[in-house]
Amino acid sequence: MLKILVVHGPNLNLLGTREPEVYGRETLADIDRNLVALGLELGAEVATFQSNHEGALIDRIHQARVEGVVGILINPGGFTHTSVALRDSLAAVAIPTIEVHLSNVHAREEFRRHSYISGVVLGQICGLGAQGYQLALRGLLGKLN
Amino acid sequence: MLKILVVHGPNLNLLGTREPEVYGRETLADIDRNLVALGLELGAEVATFQSNHEGALIDRIHQARVEGVVGILINPGGFTHTSVALRDSLAAVAIPTIEVHLSNVHAREEFRRHSYISGVVLGQICGLGAQGYQLALRGLLGKLN
Amino acid sequence: MLKILVVHGPNLNLLGTREPEVYGRETLADIDRNLVALGLELGAEVATFQSNHEGALIDRIHQARVEGVVGILINPGGFTHTSVALRDSLAAVAIPTIEVHLSNVHAREEFRRHSYISGVVLGQICGLGAQGYQLALRGLLGKLN
Amino acid sequence: MLKILVVHGPNLNLLGTREPEVYGRETLADIDRNLVALGLELGAEVATFQSNHEGALIDRIHQARVEGVVGILINPGGFTHTSVALRDSLAAVAIPTIEVHLSNVHAREEFRRHSYISGVVLGQICGLGAQGYQLALRGLLGKLN
Amino acid sequence: MLKILVVHGPNLNLLGTREPEVYGRETLADIDRNLVALGLELGAEVATFQSNHEGALIDRIHQARVEGVVGILINPGGFTHTSVALRDSLAAVAIPTIEVHLSNVHAREEFRRHSYISGVVLGQICGLGAQGYQLALRGLLGKLN
Amino acid sequence: MLKILVVHGPNLNLLGTREPEVYGRETLADIDRNLVALGLELGAEVATFQSNHEGALIDRIHQARVEGVVGILINPGGFTHTSVALRDSLAAVAIPTIEVHLSNVHAREEFRRHSYISGVVLGQICGLGAQGYQLALRGLLGKLN
Amino acid sequence: MLKILVVHGPNLNLLGTREPEVYGRETLADIDRNLVALGLELGAEVATFQSNHEGALIDRIHQARVEGVVGILINPGGFTHTSVALRDSLAAVAIPTIEVHLSNVHAREEFRRHSYISGVVLGQICGLGAQGYQLALRGLLGKLN
Amino acid sequence: MLKILVVHGPNLNLLGTREPEVYGRETLADIDRNLVALGLELGAEVATFQSNHEGALIDRIHQARVEGVVGILINPGGFTHTSVALRDSLAAVAIPTIEVHLSNVHAREEFRRHSYISGVVLGQICGLGAQGYQLALRGLLGKLN
Amino acid sequence: MLKILVVHGPNLNLLGTREPEVYGRETLADIDRNLVALGLELGAEVATFQSNHEGALIDRIHQARVEGVVGILINPGGFTHTSVALRDSLAAVAIPTIEVHLSNVHAREEFRRHSYISGVVLGQICGLGAQGYQLALRGLLGKLN
Amino acid sequence: MLKILVVHGPNLNLLGTREPEVYGRETLADIDRNLVALGLELGAEVATFQSNHEGALIDRIHQARVEGVVGILINPGGFTHTSVALRDSLAAVAIPTIEVHLSNVHAREEFRRHSYISGVVLGQICGLGAQGYQLALRGLLGKLN
Amino acid sequence: MLKILVVHGPNLNLLGTREPEVYGRETLADIDRNLVALGLELGAEVATFQSNHEGALIDRIHQARVEGVVGILINPGGFTHTSVALRDSLAAVAIPTIEVHLSNVHAREEFRRHSYISGVVLGQICGLGAQGYQLALRGLLGKLN
Amino acid sequence: MLKILVVHGPNLNLLGTREPEVYGRETLADIDRNLVALGLELGAEVATFQSNHEGALIDRIHQARVEGVVGILINPGGFTHTSVALRDSLAAVAIPTIEVHLSNVHAREEFRRHSYISGVVLGQICGLGAQGYQLALRGLLGKLN
Repeated sequence: MLKILVVHGPNLNLLGTREPEVYGRETLADIDRNLVALGLELGAEVATFQSNHEGALIDRIHQARVEGVVGILINPGGFTHTSVALRDSLAAVAIPTIEVHLSNVHAREEFRRHSYISGVVLGQICGLGAQGYQLALRGLLGKLN
Repeated sequence: MLKILVVHGPNLNLLGTREPEVYGRETLADIDRNLVALGLELGAEVATFQSNHEGALIDRIHQARVEGVVGILINPGGFTHTSVALRDSLAAVAIPTIEVHLSNVHAREEFRRHSYISGVVLGQICGLGAQGYQLALRGLLGKLN
Repeated sequence: MLKILVVHGPNLNLLGTREPEVYGRETLADIDRNLVALGLELGAEVATFQSNHEGALIDRIHQARVEGVVGILINPGGFTHTSVALRDSLAAVAIPTIEVHLSNVHAREEFRRHSYISGVVLGQICGLGAQGYQLALRGLLGKLN
Repeated sequence: MLKILVVHGPNLNLLGTREPEVYGRETLADIDRNLVALGLELGAEVATFQSNHEGALIDRIHQARVEGVVGILINPGGFTHTSVALRDSLAAVAIPTIEVHLSNVHAREEFRRHSYISGVVLGQICGLGAQGYQLALRGLLGKLN
Repeated sequence: MLKILVVHGPNLNLLGTREPEVYGRETLADIDRNLVALGLELGAEVATFQSNHEGALIDRIHQARVEGVVGILINPGGFTHTSVALRDSLAAVAIPTIEVHLSNVHAREEFRRHSYISGVVLGQICGLGAQGYQLALRGLLGKLN
Repeated sequence: MLKILVVHGPNLNLLGTREPEVYGRETLADIDRNLVALGLELGAEVATFQSNHEGALIDRIHQARVEGVVGILINPGGFTHTSVALRDSLAAVAIPTIEVHLSNVHAREEFRRHSYISGVVLGQICGLGAQGYQLALRGLLGKLN
Repeated sequence: MLKILVVHGPNLNLLGTREPEVYGRETLADIDRNLVALGLELGAEVATFQSNHEGALIDRIHQARVEGVVGILINPGGFTHTSVALRDSLAAVAIPTIEVHLSNVHAREEFRRHSYISGVVLGQICGLGAQGYQLALRGLLGKLN
Repeated sequence: MLKILVVHGPNLNLLGTREPEVYGRETLADIDRNLVALGLELGAEVATFQSNHEGALIDRIHQARVEGVVGILINPGGFTHTSVALRDSLAAVAIPTIEVHLSNVHAREEFRRHSYISGVVLGQICGLGAQGYQLALRGLLGKLN
Repeated sequence: MLKILVVHGPNLNLLGTREPEVYGRETLADIDRNLVALGLELGAEVATFQSNHEGALIDRIHQARVEGVVGILINPGGFTHTSVALRDSLAAVAIPTIEVHLSNVHAREEFRRHSYISGVVLGQICGLGAQGYQLALRGLLGKLN
Repeated sequence: MLKILVVHGPNLNLLGTREPEVYGRETLADIDRNLVALGLELGAEVATFQSNHEGALIDRIHQARVEGVVGILINPGGFTHTSVALRDSLAAVAIPTIEVHLSNVHAREEFRRHSYISGVVLGQICGLGAQGYQLALRGLLGKLN
Repeated sequence: MLKILVVHGPNLNLLGTREPEVYGRETLADIDRNLVALGLELGAEVATFQSNHEGALIDRIHQARVEGVVGILINPGGFTHTSVALRDSLAAVAIPTIEVHLSNVHAREEFRRHSYISGVVLGQICGLGAQGYQLALRGLLGKLN
Repeated sequence: MLKILVVHGPNLNLLGTREPEVYGRETLADIDRNLVALGLELGAEVATFQSNHEGALIDRIHQARVEGVVGILINPGGFTHTSVALRDSLAAVAIPTIEVHLSNVHAREEFRRHSYISGVVLGQICGLGAQGYQLALRGLLGKLN
């Protein structure tokens, strides 16, 4: 089975409990459970990881190469706009990646329109809420097959 | 059945015949046929439209409101970066819309990173090729239900 | 009688039906009818034209010179901010022109503060709603007499 | 009767005597007299004020609130581009205001294109010379009724 | 006793009467009275001054040096963002100064984020409403002792 | 014979009648006639096209590929500075192209110095008036042979 | 008793030992001890935390919500200018916060004038040295009561 | 005799007493006395004026035209960089003017490099201290003769 | 016969030997020989000059005026983007000039898109290789006749 | 013996295994071993440290001061361009430092040309691959002796 | 006697023959002769130098230090805006210098407003034509005595 | 033996005599002598060249290709920031080059942070004083072997 890694960046651990009227009531555990299930249905083994530590995210991405991961979904959260190191880690492991954002980052503050990550990924899905992850998983597997 | 309109902007009529090594061999007719089929499967009636004329695209979007269209997929092509009028037409009809790009616009020329459209849509899918439309249709229907 | 042309740009055909709480319930047909009436009262023959097509607006402005039009009122809509070609058409026919905007474009999104048109017109009226056209017609005729 | 205040900023006291081929031979006293007359005709009591002192203009605007003034016409002159304090005074008294400029400020030096005032007014009239004040008075009363 | 001068810039005379839901119901007279009282408690003689005139504020600051004032609290209002002359007056008298703003200027319009004053003061307190003055007085006296 | 397409953008239909002291008395028909004649002399079949409609220009360029056109001369007029879609159409058909401007665009308004077109053409000739087209035709045929 | 969290960002652990002529001889332990004491005096229970790890600071802020903390003082150090993730963590927990800087960041290098944090806090105190924390604690409690 | 007006802007009244190691020990009265003397020697009647009030400077410049002043020396102080109104007053009276600065404004803070005044004067002398006024007076009279 | 000067800037002496796959195998001597020949054919006496020294180029242009040169072709090489002095020398001698570039400077590094020279010439030809000089010579003589 | 610390930032742990055609086959362990050997030869004790965690790098630099380290070599990787906190840690410990980059950062993406670190170090060596560390060690010891 | 060097940059050799209606009929030889004479009158030995070669100007400035020159007047012409090397040569010899421009560079093209030279000189005189040199010589000697 | 050329740009001839407290007492002749000696030790023949003339530096670099030079060290001095022509000469001869600066250019004036040269060299060494040349020579020979 294809190994897929899902990486969630800072503050996403609060999903479902923070501003539910904006982000919905689905928690990160719900999202991860649904992704694992959809992965099984589509023939992929999905592992998930969340951290508020930039270094921990980079370490995890490095480890993915060792484990034979063939595709990554990443929601870099606030690091989207500030982390060259995270970008470099994705470029270094050279695993096909899709960037996901829950909200439409292009219609928020000016500083959220720039992404260091988008230059090293296959593509980006944003503004579609939690289902954006599921669409990204379909898209990633579509690209890999 | 839910009425969905798919709008393709300038130069997309050349799909499949232009730089196939980059954009694939699928033509716009193929993409449209597949979207109609997926729409039926998911309970939606999909109409499609392409034009190289900004005004024709705006006219078609205005007409959508009259026809009872409840969701729009739009790949604005080169107008993404230059058309305030197209943006205003989407804002005026106030129909939920998803923006689609075949290529990862964030990893190309600087001027392709800015979109007038992204400020008035639900979200954006880019860099996933022709399947990006299918994911967007799933996402749009997911949002509408 | 002095011939005056009133030119309405993209999306203005929706006036009165779109966001009436913002733009009022007056339709474009109402505005045009009132302008024709005021023109008669002030000794001018007013013709009106609306299109969502940049090229059609330019064609109409070119034709104005042939018809002997001596003054133009233009609400360029979204083309205000993006069309050098429209600007050039006004400069080419060299007919005195006043630019009209229904809303106060200076107090909206950043990109609406720049007008390619304003560099080639006599003046600008904005933020006064539909009556702005009437004031502009008075002002234009005042300038011409 | 509705009380209207007309505020003229720096250097406007020189009107009619300075560069008459550009600004016309009408003096500020002429303009004010005509505005008072038009006000009477339209059912409004018009008071006028000119100063080259930013602080004096702000004091006068504050006083307007006390006097029951219901609308302001302001030509802020050079303060248009530099005075946040004047802007704040208009925002503070919250009296509906129209900004007037004799010349087309958008077609002059770059620095004249930015107005601190335009963000807190109903609208702007420029480039129509002395009659711009009359149009603005009509527009303001139209808005108030 | 240490002499302290409190300087209030344009529009602050309206405090308590303007947008009370935002700025509170405390008037400038209340604020000044409380500062004088706190000064006495902490061993300082507090004088206060408000003007909408940039020149009057500069004159007052110059005079402070003659009077032996040893510390200044200043809320420059709208002059914060536009007055090099006010900045120069503070630099010229070289009296330790703290800048105070009632609202959090960093979270308002873009142009309010720049302060000409902040480069020549000890520090800045903003966003804490009327009590910000009291904290600033404590801070200033702490620095002076 | 080599098929060459000459494309004229918006407002160029007015040539010879508009500001003749600037642009000369030669009309677009004269220019086209001379280009056809020079083409015959140099062994090329020259077709010409003018439109004020961006979409019509794109449609015509697409058609050129079908017709076997091997070289394009384009004067994009005002679309030079604003049309990504026109740029994309030239890139899509991948026919060698030279960009022509009658006036020296580099010595006019700031916004005329940027060209979206120049990034996808062989080269550019500007400032040499109507003969610039003839030089461009020579240059294009020189490049093709 | 009200629970207050004081968060110190990177390099602040060196306080008192690094450049004492600039930052004073007070250590971070001194500052924390004084804040706890002042808190007790004013009826608040103050907890403190320092880390050079962005992720650890975010984790601590998340935990604050669980613990029932009602107010935060934060000196984000170098993260002030670079961390969207830290900003987002404060926005997510939605606990009233005051930003503190020991030095006057507005009068130092250009890059220190921008704060990602200041857009999501009540206010900011800077340039008043170690006593700035005490003023901020007073101000925060004043706001909360 | 030729009438010359010397205008000193804000904070220049402090000359000689403020930072004497930088600006020298000469007071404004000394400078004015020397200019009057040099004027007599060169056949000119020199009047001088200083104010910290922008409006008062503008009033004085307006009055100069009435008095038959034929040349102006102005050191606009901090208004150099912020006052469009002062610029406009010089343009309005159209009296040949030379701008003087004591220090080399081009080698100080970034914001001091921009002058609104320099666009409407004959020339500028800076960085030569108090004697710069004398050189400017010679230069102005040289231009007038 | 009309005297024409051809001026080649820095590094052009290496033509034909440097990156021949890009710039072709034609040497500068070949280009010059061909230009002299074409000049004779068209009734002009062509002199040529190359230098890597900015000053030598300026000296040569000054000398052209003395010699009665009536037209200049210049390829300023790297000085295009950095030399105001070269620009000034062309403006000073006021001889009609055409700017030539072998490559399409608009499609290379960002810094090559700006030309100090283009503001003082008749026009510009770029991207057409060595034949660009021949077209420019034809164009220049066309303009002069 | 002089104590030297070598600090490697994020992603450098992958050296030798990642894009070996670009970065060479030397691993970080090889580089460290060679530096320790060269240090012994030149009379210095070299310790090395790598982390993907910004906070861990800062902690290690703080500890260096306690250990009596007299010189630092740092390759900050992606933190070069984004970390004010790392910059501040180097400034705080005030140990002479040289910045090393394997690749020529000035010839890559625009965002890699800016370094927060370079303002607080002795100098920088870049683009010389793994031997750049050895040259930096020689240079650092040369500076210290 | 004090040795003074006058340095004229590129194109100034054309003075008096180029655009005499703008720059006057005085040649550079006249200016130099007058400066030598004024120097003698004021007790200074004036040497002059002109070159269109940046390197020659730098060589001459270096030589000045060897010769015991104690003051420099420089009109850097077009190098004002482009030569860091010339700036560095003045900084290196550390001889007090005044910058002179014949025209008011601040009221011409945007690129003439920036001077690399002005950051390392005592002051600047511009816009006063040929007499500006004489005023500068007086000013320089005034500074030196 | 490998032929190496060392190129020194403007003002470097003054080394050792200019600001010795900053740049050290080593003269350019010392530096060159040491480089020749180190070259011999490492098996390379080092030639050196200094000029204040941009053109002379370019001529010398062109000549290097003819002489069989295989590596270049260049300290471009002030031309670093202003010379596209020098950059082009290095690109044209395509000889591996290292850029050296005595001081840390990244910690000085803003305009010194940009280098036209760094885009066409192997790497850069800066801030290490005269020994920077020796390290660069070692690095260059290391790269060549």
